[in-house]
Amino acid sequence: MPRTIPLASYLFKRLRQYGVNHLFGVPGDFTLKALDHAKTSGVKWVGNCNELNAGFAADGYARTKGLGALFTTYGVGELSAINAVAGSYAEHVPVIHIAGLPQRQHMIQKQHTRAGDIVHHSLGDRKNTVFRDMYKNVTVAQAFLTNKDTAPEQIDNAIRYALTQCRPSYIGLPCDMVNREVNAEGLDLDITRNLQDTGSSQEQSDITGEGLVEIISQYLEEAQRPLLLVDRSMGMDQLRQELNDFVVSSGTPTLTMPSGASMIDHHIPNYYGVHAGPVGQIDTMPLVDDADLVLAFGPMFADTQTLGWTVVPDPTKTIIIGKQKTWLFGEREPGQVDARELLRALTSNAKNKKSLSSTHKHPPISDFRTVTAPAYQNQKDSIDQSGLYLRLNQYLRPHDIILLGNATPILGGRDFVLPDSSCRVIVSGLWFSIGSTLPTALGAGMAQQANHNDTNAQSPKGRVVVLEGDGSFQVTAQELSTIIHHRLNMTIFLINNDGYAYERLIHNPDADYHDVAPWIYSLLPRAFGAREAIRKACSLGQDYSVDVITLRTWTDLEDFLKDERFDNGSGGVGKPGLKLVEIKLEKTDVPEKFKKVFESAGQRLG
Amino acid sequence: MPRTIPLASYLFKRLRQYGVNHLFGVPGDFTLKALDHAKTSGVKWVGNCNELNAGFAADGYARTKGLGALFTTYGVGELSAINAVAGSYAEHVPVIHIAGLPQRQHMIQKQHTRAGDIVHHSLGDRKNTVFRDMYKNVTVAQAFLTNKDTAPEQIDNAIRYALTQCRPSYIGLPCDMVNREVNAEGLDLDITRNLQDTGSSQEQSDITGEGLVEIISQYLEEAQRPLLLVDRSMGMDQLRQELNDFVVSSGTPTLTMPSGASMIDHHIPNYYGVHAGPVGQIDTMPLVDDADLVLAFGPMFADTQTLGWTVVPDPTKTIIIGKQKTWLFGEREPGQVDARELLRALTSNAKNKKSLSSTHKHPPISDFRTVTAPAYQNQKDSIDQSGLYLRLNQYLRPHDIILLGNATPILGGRDFVLPDSSCRVIVSGLWFSIGSTLPTALGAGMAQQANHNDTNAQSPKGRVVVLEGDGSFQVTAQELSTIIHHRLNMTIFLINNDGYAYERLIHNPDADYHDVAPWIYSLLPRAFGAREAIRKACSLGQDYSVDVITLRTWTDLEDFLKDERFDNGSGGVGKPGLKLVEIKLEKTDVPEKFKKVFESAGQRLG
Repeated sequence: MPRTIPLASYLFKRLRQYGVNHLFGVPGDFTLKALDHAKTSGVKWVGNCNELNAGFAADGYARTKGLGALFTTYGVGELSAINAVAGSYAEHVPVIHIAGLPQRQHMIQKQHTRAGDIVHHSLGDRKNTVFRDMYKNVTVAQAFLTNKDTAPEQIDNAIRYALTQCRPSYIGLPCDMVNREVNAEGLDLDITRNLQDTGSSQEQSDITGEGLVEIISQYLEEAQRPLLLVDRSMGMDQLRQELNDFVVSSGTPTLTMPSGASMIDHHIPNYYGVHAGPVGQIDTMPLVDDADLVLAFGPMFADTQTLGWTVVPDPTKTIIIGKQKTWLFGEREPGQVDARELLRALTSNAKNKKSLSSTHKHPPISDFRTVTAPAYQNQKDSIDQSGLYLRLNQYLRPHDIILLGNATPILGGRDFVLPDSSCRVIVSGLWFSIGSTLPTALGAGMAQQANHNDTNAQSPKGRVVVLEGDGSFQVTAQELSTIIHHRLNMTIFLINNDGYAYERLIHNPDADYHDVAPWIYSLLPRAFGAREAIRKACSLGQDYSVDVITLRTWTDLEDFLKDERFDNGSGGVGKPGLKLVEIKLEKTDVPEKFKKVFESAGQRLG
Repeated sequence: MPRTIPLASYLFKRLRQYGVNHLFGVPGDFTLKALDHAKTSGVKWVGNCNELNAGFAADGYARTKGLGALFTTYGVGELSAINAVAGSYAEHVPVIHIAGLPQRQHMIQKQHTRAGDIVHHSLGDRKNTVFRDMYKNVTVAQAFLTNKDTAPEQIDNAIRYALTQCRPSYIGLPCDMVNREVNAEGLDLDITRNLQDTGSSQEQSDITGEGLVEIISQYLEEAQRPLLLVDRSMGMDQLRQELNDFVVSSGTPTLTMPSGASMIDHHIPNYYGVHAGPVGQIDTMPLVDDADLVLAFGPMFADTQTLGWTVVPDPTKTIIIGKQKTWLFGEREPGQVDARELLRALTSNAKNKKSLSSTHKHPPISDFRTVTAPAYQNQKDSIDQSGLYLRLNQYLRPHDIILLGNATPILGGRDFVLPDSSCRVIVSGLWFSIGSTLPTALGAGMAQQANHNDTNAQSPKGRVVVLEGDGSFQVTAQELSTIIHHRLNMTIFLINNDGYAYERLIHNPDADYHDVAPWIYSLLPRAFGAREAIRKACSLGQDYSVDVITLRTWTDLEDFLKDERFDNGSGGVGKPGLKLVEIKLEKTDVPEKFKKVFESAGQRLG
């Protein structure tokens, strides 16, 4: 007799093996029985306020820890989360979405009278698997666990697809399958054992594998002015170390896309910062225009981070490299190549030659590490975005995870110089879903804690630093209560400019549809349970604090940056806790340089 | 030359003609240019905190005013709202979901290199119409407005389908189509001119039209103990007057499903209340079991409102009647019948005979109008749900719109006796999406104001009365700020029992996944801008107040019910405004009678 285990235990143990210590979601009746197995399998339940927030949290967790999971109920729950899962799909983040389903007998389409068994959370039209069908568009695998003999393998496949393709998978778990005993022996096998089998064979071109490694090496060798352009999509997030090794050993000039800002150690001399084209503090276009070969690793060339595609390098000079697929010089069909092998080969070639950096000629580019904020006229003047981000830079500490909210924080945060390679920046490059930042920060913060517990108890715990606009904050504001409830160490810079500033600047600035309701943000931590969290920490002998401050002038900002209460990074003395820092700005304040971005975005509306 | 108008103006003017005075949503770049046309077309923009909330608000608006609309941006916006739109689909609520799309050239699937024009808010895989495809599952029509010559007719069709089938339609509006001049002459034609053409011919049985009216009349005439069971689904919501006329003229015993609680005037003598079977204050099963014919109008026989289908009448004795389709005695295929004609014929038949009520024999059923709350032992005892709802009954006033949140408020609210036929109850009968109540109340409140303005300025403005659990409230809490911002007249009873009580009672009550973060709810109105709203009202010479109170004991409740500040109905003197009434309950407090509901729900989890 093989060793057996309840199906739900198999699922959660499997997730735990691949780094899922925390499970996000909202309970619903169809999930309850399975939830009992999460705890016993070593997976901690983090209840969110709603499912969309849970989806974003799972995304932030996966970006930080390599794999994330959310668990929602049938119909209402899975549809509420689908925008977040679609975002993970668009931006290549491996998330497992488990949907707790009705009993199998109620999932079957029946065409009898309307007086029958219409199950709640269904559309009432008998098409009870319709939600899974919708998920086919935003997941790389869909497992519908109706058979105990095949269920473990279906689970393994769903997780394997997510890990290898760096995109979400969907697992449908009918509530009458939860306690079915299944063969547990799969738990001893490596889930990625068939890693190479998961690419779609239809999309392969003739050139594959080693041949392609040779060819790309050759192109690089022949190039006079090569450029590396690094982003985190297409699975390149998993190859951060290999990428940095190659950048160091080759000495080739390197830029990152805004969404890949922390992919490369900011202190490597041949790293020239974030490629924002002519709107950045330093114009990076000369490097791109001058290059005769661009190796673009996992790029997200969406209009909004390429100034309407105007800063995308010439496709005929560009090789796009994903973890498993490569596109040569604008070719439609990708070739199959293992980017890890490719990077190792390129690194090895580079090490066998004299440093390329000395032979390369490229346009002189200033050092982004030395850019300083423009001086302000009067210290009692209102803070503006031209000087804000460059001054906030000094707040950053090693091990920080920095989240940049959509719109102006994304633009401003391009100027950050990360203290060291332990920092991570989480920022959207394609999906740009308003409101995603706060719950994503929750997920990243839980993962940061878990990573800390998993590895070295001596290292600093790290902080999460969030920059978020007020319009975006209101979308998912209640998740601040979950952040407080779980006592995460987080600083939230709430950039309050009375509405949707990015949109205000694109079109018709005086229109009232850019406005949001006037909130008193400083009251929210207390309303969301701050005192109870502090009390709880106290009872456990832990440090936790909640501080709220509002900054209006440059003096306010400078005093804040000196205030030890707010600094609990490696150099600071403040208690860990939540710091909500509201920064009041004028409605239409933006740096002159950004205006091109808004003009470009406005023009693309036809 | 025909008269022309910009396409977006045509759309909004058409919506305005059919009762859409308010448009819900969140602005996004792809929606901005169209939004300029809303105001000029007489449609007021109501910005929501997020798109899911906007979808629920549009649903509440449509339930109150006959048609609702929401406007979201491409991808991120439409997916965030899809759960609410699916709910409107499941429960037969006519809502128009407009999605602002990228320019047409970016919506076309292109298979060229990855370095090209990947548009933000897309999945990055070139399948840019995938979201519309997903909407096919939850809408009855999808209009993709790419051609100015056909666009007006597409809009008309989408609205017509929504109105006739009482379900949502989807309209995709590329941003480069917004200002295209289109023929405006359609605006002078009745949109419902082809009303009868919209049924699906595939589903017709042989018996149609007048034949079916005769047959059903005959069945009713022959029945000895007929019963009417009324709900609001399948378009019956639009035939409320005809249904009441029939109930009065026929004298036939009548029940409503919980989700149709306000379909029938509660003071008609042969109306016997809400059919909750054996768990109601009065057991209604004897009436159902005794009947030899049940006419079930628009029923939602979901497990959760039928005690696991145990209180559904015998299908072989039941005729199910929707607005356009009718199912005889458990038949699979519906017949086509116009329910309005059917009801008029039945009413006319009934009037030509002596009152049926005198000849009908049916089991004696107590009068639900006279049920009183059980006495409590001590007035300092904590409030419990056995006595709460029956006592809150006296708070209700004519013109109130009452929303019952999922779980315990739905169960308790079954006991309400509505003051008169001007009251409406909004309650889910199938979709049961946690958190829908508050934003739905926002939509209902806006519609209530608009109805008031449209009709008689002398009539009382009416209130919205919300009963909502704490777990559910947290899902969409930020929409309270929109309610305050628009100064709606609303009383929210926040039933605070520290978590998801319904689920706690179904399975494993001690599990921590039933818990929610501890909020200080009383602080929220201020955080969400109450003072600013009062100031604004003051500056406009209007009355508006925000009051917050917490009730723990029976004394608290009785004092509250006597407090004039909180009563601004027809008999009260309080100012219109927001009243947030937190009612603290024990975690697992439920009436003994409800326990059967939880047991039944737990058993259905397999």
